[in-house]
Amino acid sequence: MSIVGTPDPQDPDDDVLSQSGGADSGWLTDVELDLARRKVPMVYVEALPVRVGSGGRVTEVGLLLRVSDAASITRTIVSGRVRFGESLREALLRHLENDLGPIAFPQLPASPLPLAVGEYFPVPSSPAELFDGRQHAVSLAYVVPVTGTCQPRQDALELTWLTPEQVRRPGTLADLEGNRGVLVERLLAAVGV
Amino acid sequence: MSIVGTPDPQDPDDDVLSQSGGADSGWLTDVELDLARRKVPMVYVEALPVRVGSGGRVTEVGLLLRVSDAASITRTIVSGRVRFGESLREALLRHLENDLGPIAFPQLPASPLPLAVGEYFPVPSSPAELFDGRQHAVSLAYVVPVTGTCQPRQDALELTWLTPEQVRRPGTLADLEGNRGVLVERLLAAVGV
Amino acid sequence: MSIVGTPDPQDPDDDVLSQSGGADSGWLTDVELDLARRKVPMVYVEALPVRVGSGGRVTEVGLLLRVSDAASITRTIVSGRVRFGESLREALLRHLENDLGPIAFPQLPASPLPLAVGEYFPVPSSPAELFDGRQHAVSLAYVVPVTGTCQPRQDALELTWLTPEQVRRPGTLADLEGNRGVLVERLLAAVGV
Amino acid sequence: MSIVGTPDPQDPDDDVLSQSGGADSGWLTDVELDLARRKVPMVYVEALPVRVGSGGRVTEVGLLLRVSDAASITRTIVSGRVRFGESLREALLRHLENDLGPIAFPQLPASPLPLAVGEYFPVPSSPAELFDGRQHAVSLAYVVPVTGTCQPRQDALELTWLTPEQVRRPGTLADLEGNRGVLVERLLAAVGV
Repeated sequence: MSIVGTPDPQDPDDDVLSQSGGADSGWLTDVELDLARRKVPMVYVEALPVRVGSGGRVTEVGLLLRVSDAASITRTIVSGRVRFGESLREALLRHLENDLGPIAFPQLPASPLPLAVGEYFPVPSSPAELFDGRQHAVSLAYVVPVTGTCQPRQDALELTWLTPEQVRRPGTLADLEGNRGVLVERLLAAVGV
Repeated sequence: MSIVGTPDPQDPDDDVLSQSGGADSGWLTDVELDLARRKVPMVYVEALPVRVGSGGRVTEVGLLLRVSDAASITRTIVSGRVRFGESLREALLRHLENDLGPIAFPQLPASPLPLAVGEYFPVPSSPAELFDGRQHAVSLAYVVPVTGTCQPRQDALELTWLTPEQVRRPGTLADLEGNRGVLVERLLAAVGV
Repeated sequence: MSIVGTPDPQDPDDDVLSQSGGADSGWLTDVELDLARRKVPMVYVEALPVRVGSGGRVTEVGLLLRVSDAASITRTIVSGRVRFGESLREALLRHLENDLGPIAFPQLPASPLPLAVGEYFPVPSSPAELFDGRQHAVSLAYVVPVTGTCQPRQDALELTWLTPEQVRRPGTLADLEGNRGVLVERLLAAVGV
Repeated sequence: MSIVGTPDPQDPDDDVLSQSGGADSGWLTDVELDLARRKVPMVYVEALPVRVGSGGRVTEVGLLLRVSDAASITRTIVSGRVRFGESLREALLRHLENDLGPIAFPQLPASPLPLAVGEYFPVPSSPAELFDGRQHAVSLAYVVPVTGTCQPRQDALELTWLTPEQVRRPGTLADLEGNRGVLVERLLAAVGV
């Protein structure tokens, strides 16, 4: 398991950020972002993509395969930073589109209340806690049904659909970067799976 | 305002119930249902239909106009009893289809956790409390985005789409039967409107 | 594991119910209650008692040991029916006092929104679903910190305090009657354990 | 109404922050904090202190009176930044103790899931939106019963206990700094008041 729990510096999203910038725009250079990451907690949104059957019951759960810094392959969920000036909904939509492509047709939750809250610390306090070597992040996590076709962008190798039972196998959950298996379990519990 | 807070005895749903029956099927005669209503709390599901704009923000709220027992016209939301043996999701889908028609395409919430809980008592304890002259009911209430066309069934005269601001006017909320304005306020608060 | 998922007919609470009664009081004879149980879903409240350390983190989880109908010993949580005319809070307090004694000092949640919703069906639909041989019940389930001393009433043999890790062992969760291990997992997930 | 929605630079909490510091400790100089505030969203926790009667029903709501930058007096709730490396619970406890004193005995929620999420932007997008002239902040907001005696620290003039009805009067809600009346309404709705 990689110790990098969130999108790495080569993340296209952060690249976009560093290409423009200016203090008032809410966009940051890489240096500024790295600095902020060591000073204050970052706000994140996360989403577990699911497919639902008739009646709204979750039938499949989508996990992303990603090549991390250390060239190891890890699983993850849709996850990304909220930019300065951006609403939670806007951030959620942006990261869903980045990670699932433009025709996934995600159904955003009516309520901004998260189904789980993740607290990522740069030093893992215990094996069962969320962590992220680069920063302290607080994430608001949701379950998002998608009805369209998912086409993950380049740096995520693949989106795999698994049954809830397959996801809950210890091996699968342990593969999730940053210990996100803990968060996925909470999200699945919240939707009654 | 009528003091009847839930579907009246002429409700097609209850008619269907009384046409068949049998103790093991979970279907009830009118007499049996009336009896149970005076003995134990009933389980209800309720749904506030909404239209959402890009980004998932609620832009319109759907209220039903209904002719009540006393031939007065009242507003209400999607609301109905959970039958014996029926899951909350099944009941929610059934009442949504009954009240909004077959091509409303409601997006059921991923989580069975309600956004509000309604407690209806047969005797109103205070002007601000939910009540229902016929029964004690506990309702699990949701906000449900619909993407299709709503065609309310016969006994509901009309489905009106209002902006959140229009809904929150005291006059509109006071028109809701059984004091449901209280519940609608809680649901709108939960979705951050 | 017993197939009885909720308090048995010898439950003192139900005894109290049957001693008085009358159609208008909301109290029931055993016969009336048995009848209603085969006709409509019952409303239940459930509570997982916990002890919290400084900072509000759950340090211990309380499980009740109970002798069931079949004289087998099973684990359970605080669980009981909501009476006609009784509020969810009143029912929760009554069952907490019944099961934990008068000096447990439970801290009721500020919000009536449950942390989990349980749907118990009389016929188990799958090994992972909640069930209750006597009835269809919908339960609103909470996590309730207690600060006092717990003295379970007679028919519950013992209240055992376990660490969250001990509770989550498959063996412990499988011991819970009516498959409540599923519900306990959801409640623990909701409090971030 | 002041346009400053969060504790001002003279806030004792931020003073403490600026007295020590060092990049690795998570503590910031005023300059560093001001810089971060213009670059990334800040993580906040907020709490509405309440007194509950028997049965857990909210009977009184506590609002703080504060002298703001512009020497105007505004109402607010417990609100403050989450520090680098600090958990949400720790931040919540710290700000509760700062604002209510050491013997308020707040009952932290068992679940880290907020009852409302606040999004504060530096430029008010509409009269009904939360805003904070100094920063973009995302707050996780809770309702916290207190059982002890509240002794607000020096810079908050007074803690006033109001009935829920008094709080919901438009005049009172409009007095809340940063448009927090909106958030208080959501929190009161979530606890069923």
